[in-house]
Amino acid sequence: MVKREELYVGVDLGGTNVRAAVIDAAGHVLGQEKHRLLSREPPQVAEAVVRAAKTACGAAGMPFTEMKGMGLGVAGWIQKGTGVVMNAPNLGWREVPFLKLVQARAPKLPLWIGNDLSVAAGGERAAGAGRGVDDLLVVLVGSGVGAGIILGGKLHEGASNVAGELGHVMVHPGGRQCGCGQRGCLEAYAGGHNLAAWARDDLRIALAAARAAGQRHPNVGRKLLEIAGEPEKVTAAAMEKAAHEGDELSRRLLEEAGDLLGIALANLITVLNPARLLLGGGVLNGSPRMMRAAIAQVDAHTTKAARLALQITAPELGEQAGVVGAALLARASLALAA
Amino acid sequence: MVKREELYVGVDLGGTNVRAAVIDAAGHVLGQEKHRLLSREPPQVAEAVVRAAKTACGAAGMPFTEMKGMGLGVAGWIQKGTGVVMNAPNLGWREVPFLKLVQARAPKLPLWIGNDLSVAAGGERAAGAGRGVDDLLVVLVGSGVGAGIILGGKLHEGASNVAGELGHVMVHPGGRQCGCGQRGCLEAYAGGHNLAAWARDDLRIALAAARAAGQRHPNVGRKLLEIAGEPEKVTAAAMEKAAHEGDELSRRLLEEAGDLLGIALANLITVLNPARLLLGGGVLNGSPRMMRAAIAQVDAHTTKAARLALQITAPELGEQAGVVGAALLARASLALAA
Repeated sequence: MVKREELYVGVDLGGTNVRAAVIDAAGHVLGQEKHRLLSREPPQVAEAVVRAAKTACGAAGMPFTEMKGMGLGVAGWIQKGTGVVMNAPNLGWREVPFLKLVQARAPKLPLWIGNDLSVAAGGERAAGAGRGVDDLLVVLVGSGVGAGIILGGKLHEGASNVAGELGHVMVHPGGRQCGCGQRGCLEAYAGGHNLAAWARDDLRIALAAARAAGQRHPNVGRKLLEIAGEPEKVTAAAMEKAAHEGDELSRRLLEEAGDLLGIALANLITVLNPARLLLGGGVLNGSPRMMRAAIAQVDAHTTKAARLALQITAPELGEQAGVVGAALLARASLALAA
Repeated sequence: MVKREELYVGVDLGGTNVRAAVIDAAGHVLGQEKHRLLSREPPQVAEAVVRAAKTACGAAGMPFTEMKGMGLGVAGWIQKGTGVVMNAPNLGWREVPFLKLVQARAPKLPLWIGNDLSVAAGGERAAGAGRGVDDLLVVLVGSGVGAGIILGGKLHEGASNVAGELGHVMVHPGGRQCGCGQRGCLEAYAGGHNLAAWARDDLRIALAAARAAGQRHPNVGRKLLEIAGEPEKVTAAAMEKAAHEGDELSRRLLEEAGDLLGIALANLITVLNPARLLLGGGVLNGSPRMMRAAIAQVDAHTTKAARLALQITAPELGEQAGVVGAALLARASLALAA
């Protein structure tokens, strides 16, 4: 028999989907729900969040009114104290008072809000591959690149809640344009969309050069072009497949992106000396080549003493990390506040 | 009247000098002592530490036996739990059980040991320019480059006590040889000894080129050579002076070192989002040019949100930071353990 007073609902809000789950104190999922967002208008999204939470409660056989609290993980910068989403590129939001919008639809429920990497790190530490690890980095490489940081057993969110922006460390001054407005950020190379755009740029150059030389196919990237069909359809997954089949352009870019990621990681590990690094996310999981390159750079460039203290492994919770972490961080944080 | 039970003695052990001071709860120095190390043999250094502590007590008019505890700051890697100095390049030590050697000479005194950057950060936070700041970086650029890290109000020393090695982040893969055995570390450019060596290398090349062309003086670095006398005598201070008098070589290297430091700082600030950065140390204090270059890079490359939350200022305690921090960290840590 589950004690009702121990149950929290966790919500993971991405740019496309909202997930919700009822989570017990051990981080187990008792019931869950996932649906697509039909609108990105903040009030509609707040509706969708509460609806998903209620459906997850139904699936767990628990009334929504008996939840002790709700944790929300949002991919974006959340202002400390107010719960205002200052910036969430995936949702196209700026300064959206999201916590208030949700609170208006669930008036009595204690709420907690944090960013997606923080909840992933909290989830992995409580119930995943970071169990019992006090100094833990969780680095996810998907369309974005980010880090969840736990130091001394506590989530580190920074002075204004923007810690963990590993995607925006400078790896190449004056380099490729990043979505953030800067040039040469790690994410401009290793983030999924940017990696594919980088390959498309190189492919277009190769195509133009081939045509100028009277050839139909470029020498570099030919395999990638075959797999993708046309430059516009190149993805990170297509690059990995092409590299596996001998495509030099794809191999080079995946390894370069992995190298840049690995050096950024090595530098962070040298300074923070964590006990464990969980390395995952859609792009890295889809590209063993990029993963190998990144780990090789960590091995080569981290100080020996910091490398010796470090284990590198994969996150365990996968897509569940967000809902589990949001619920467990809500529990920890709301219990402290009570 | 000072309550005796509140007094701790702090010791700062460098490669050349040992300093000791009696510190009250507010971080005030009640009495102090500084003397040169006559030997680097661990037992003699332990003797010198206890002697300096006793002399500082005498200067404060307090018996050594009434100290509540002693804190030791050592420039090096100190093993967690054991107090063994695993590696202290300035002292030429490897795996020296230094805490034990000191304890044998002060059998009843509770001891605490930490590295020099940690004690500097602890001192600045307790009684210097980091007062009341929970997320604080203290970065000192002298012959070495290092960071003391306080996050969430707690000193962050890492899983194996080697956090803060900012001097050994990789800024130039395959670049200049660093004392640690790696190539391209920040310290290989910005550390005082390495910066001077870099200038000497470039000067020698310029000299050889000038002679091959039948000229007596090189075009680049002429002013630096005049000021230093010969390449072997170049120092960071001479470079700053020469740059001030128009020497292009000195200007370029100081700015390049500042740029590399600034990018490493920007990346760390982007990921950690601290509220304050204290930036100092002998080399930076002696080279406004390098300091300006570093801060310009921080301004240019830190994410906007992290830069907005950050104040940059100078450490306040200067040479006192070590003794004050060692005493206050000993107080905090021994009080917790009691």
